[in-house]
Amino acid sequence: MIADVTKNLNWIAVDWGTSRLRLWLMDAAGKILDHRTSDQGMASLSPDGFEPALLALLGDALPENGHVPVICCGMAGSRQGWAEAPYVRTPCAPPSIGNATQVATGDPRLQVFLLPGLEQQSPADVMRGEETQIAGFLSTEPDFDGVLCLPGTHCKWAHISAGEVVSFRTFMTGELFALLSGQSVLRHSVSTGGWDDDAFRTAVGEAMARPAAVSASLFSIRAESLLNGMPADTARARLSGLLLGLELGGARPYWLGRDIAVLGESGIAAAYCNALAAQAAQVRSVPGQHMTLNGLRAARAHIGEFKP
Amino acid sequence: MIADVTKNLNWIAVDWGTSRLRLWLMDAAGKILDHRTSDQGMASLSPDGFEPALLALLGDALPENGHVPVICCGMAGSRQGWAEAPYVRTPCAPPSIGNATQVATGDPRLQVFLLPGLEQQSPADVMRGEETQIAGFLSTEPDFDGVLCLPGTHCKWAHISAGEVVSFRTFMTGELFALLSGQSVLRHSVSTGGWDDDAFRTAVGEAMARPAAVSASLFSIRAESLLNGMPADTARARLSGLLLGLELGGARPYWLGRDIAVLGESGIAAAYCNALAAQAAQVRSVPGQHMTLNGLRAARAHIGEFKP
Repeated sequence: MIADVTKNLNWIAVDWGTSRLRLWLMDAAGKILDHRTSDQGMASLSPDGFEPALLALLGDALPENGHVPVICCGMAGSRQGWAEAPYVRTPCAPPSIGNATQVATGDPRLQVFLLPGLEQQSPADVMRGEETQIAGFLSTEPDFDGVLCLPGTHCKWAHISAGEVVSFRTFMTGELFALLSGQSVLRHSVSTGGWDDDAFRTAVGEAMARPAAVSASLFSIRAESLLNGMPADTARARLSGLLLGLELGGARPYWLGRDIAVLGESGIAAAYCNALAAQAAQVRSVPGQHMTLNGLRAARAHIGEFKP
Repeated sequence: MIADVTKNLNWIAVDWGTSRLRLWLMDAAGKILDHRTSDQGMASLSPDGFEPALLALLGDALPENGHVPVICCGMAGSRQGWAEAPYVRTPCAPPSIGNATQVATGDPRLQVFLLPGLEQQSPADVMRGEETQIAGFLSTEPDFDGVLCLPGTHCKWAHISAGEVVSFRTFMTGELFALLSGQSVLRHSVSTGGWDDDAFRTAVGEAMARPAAVSASLFSIRAESLLNGMPADTARARLSGLLLGLELGGARPYWLGRDIAVLGESGIAAAYCNALAAQAAQVRSVPGQHMTLNGLRAARAHIGEFKP
């Protein structure tokens, strides 16, 4: 079994994030031979810890001889990562192998390429990892003209036209929700699981209509729970809705009047779709599961364009 | 020395917050005999831990016989505190001894009164502790008609007229700043100390003019630091300014066209004053140091009005 993997191994696709390392062992036809993950994310590693972490996860899969291309996206290419893969500046096509940085390795069988992220000068913004999802999306919809929304801890909105990222903005909505629901005074009132769709929709609408009022509405969640016994699921949906409404208000110049594709099928991606649809926006959801891998596949297909 | 304190001790003023216990030993003329503090705040105590914490801090100061009134404000009167002192509903005068809840004690020398907080039904809001500062302020300016701003972890804005709290709102600005500067991705870019007044003023203005854009401007602090080397002091002032601007936008119905008094002399109280003055608001700062004690003094003066 593992001998078959080794025999057919052609390259390795790696998504190296802040807290997780995910890799796929790939054959020459782009088929997945194996998928492996570990918690050795960028944040837990010093620069000389990346190669051992990679080798530990590859284990017995590497052949005894030869070179195996390893194409990485994500935080491994950040200043605090394995080596810095300098940002490419927008407007530009999503970075591919031609923009990659090669890292020297102790093990001669590894040929490691770090894909860079994107930077925008004004307003200042950066992304690292999402650009590869965008590349994956464009590999299946090369003529897309509109706005991509990539929900997550730091949600990205990217204006795409003619195969390029024209501009993008980052919203800390996911991180704000985690901090407020888990560590602020609101943690006493907000559930960790459930949901209330009506409360969510109402809160999104409120925050979009009167964004400044969000600053006071947040504490009202605590007060509603103390005084009127607001259910913890309602409180959670309301907190999420207020923060998402503030984001949708700020992102209006992105989505207004454009085709919108929301990447992913998580609950929060569905929440973005519903909230945008309620604004009569042209929105659809796109399965996001394989976008990163597709972006890495696109880079592999152009490996001849690497400039050392 | 301590014998003199015990001989002259007439009552004890207590400000029992979430994380701190502060008390003053007072004589019959309202003079401070001694001031003591400990870190046995409400959050670290179960209901039966309050009396021992109080006795430990009082130590040798209590007389061997007789009753000593102990008047407490703050979180000791919350549902998770020593005993619940139910909120008084606005509009109302700041609660005094007539609204207090007496707690039974094991030590017969203690006669403990918990002052309640304020609640507002719509929009839902609560305060516990600040109402005693308001009482202290009104004891020196009984005819004040305008808006009191009490900066802090949860900043309170209270509309005061005819000796009553007409309405109030709470803003989580201080807690948001602590979470974002200390625990979010922005912690890598924001200093723990310094300041940049120009950056602060610019950010306040931006957030007041376009509150929804704050959702994207927050992450730009990180990007400005990565791409353009924004100094950490500038980043800190900009974060504070964005959050304060969002608050001032949300609190506009409170301060617009009214006399404003900002309680306290901390750096952040000065920042509120400066930001409001830049909006041509009628604002002055009021020394806040003794407001809580003055509020407790006012309650002591009416102790005959306690209804068991």
